[in-house]
Amino acid sequence: MSTPHEATGREALVDGLLETCLYASDLVAAEAFYGGLLGLSVVMREAGRHVFFRAGPSMFFVFDPAATCESAPDAALPVPPHGATGPGHVCFRSTGLDRLRARLEAAGHPAEADFRWPNGARSLYVRDPAGNSVEFAEPALWGY
Amino acid sequence: MSTPHEATGREALVDGLLETCLYASDLVAAEAFYGGLLGLSVVMREAGRHVFFRAGPSMFFVFDPAATCESAPDAALPVPPHGATGPGHVCFRSTGLDRLRARLEAAGHPAEADFRWPNGARSLYVRDPAGNSVEFAEPALWGY
Repeated sequence: MSTPHEATGREALVDGLLETCLYASDLVAAEAFYGGLLGLSVVMREAGRHVFFRAGPSMFFVFDPAATCESAPDAALPVPPHGATGPGHVCFRSTGLDRLRARLEAAGHPAEADFRWPNGARSLYVRDPAGNSVEFAEPALWGY
Repeated sequence: MSTPHEATGREALVDGLLETCLYASDLVAAEAFYGGLLGLSVVMREAGRHVFFRAGPSMFFVFDPAATCESAPDAALPVPPHGATGPGHVCFRSTGLDRLRARLEAAGHPAEADFRWPNGARSLYVRDPAGNSVEFAEPALWGY
């Protein structure tokens, strides 16, 4: 990131996000939603553990927290454990919200909310099969 | 996203991530870590509810799940509730991992892991103040 931290003027040591994740116990349903319905490319999957998608300039992962909350003692690499429960949140960029809402509704994912923020940008919210709150927003929401 | 879904050839309806989030009950500590230490710009904060950062081409949010797990009955906009507990995961891009590791260690965040993946890309992992697994990786890990 080239913008210095506003409060301190200190240069940022990171340059945007490379991976974002949500959790789901049913990874087959997650892949049907994020891959089949939203059209994200599956890059890698391990049944019962994770599905990895490419989402433009960064990756989007869905993990089964029951499989990732402890380190595998025989793992080849010391990847630290993680795993949350309860509904998480993610927001994808979209400029085709009418078409997206129609496809989601036809697939059994009705809009939980669909409104414009004070700056005029529109957000659409649905639940993924695991109950996560998935938002689709016009990038102008955050000045992009 | 301009890449069609590999499995179906169906055009993706979303174009990358606009927002990624983690959860923390101590938002002051979260802001000290992501803002003060990593240098992300604070865009917005609401004490006891959230801190929003800009992370290059997308936003990065930290929410207190105790405040976001139920809709506020008097909210101006019908933002759906969400809120997870347990350690989540996020990965930032970085090409200055030596400098980053030194700054994190000096601030009391020792490396939990620091290794190279089979493709040669390096990942560094620490815990944020809430216990989330925060990774910093060279973008080549995913072919960027």
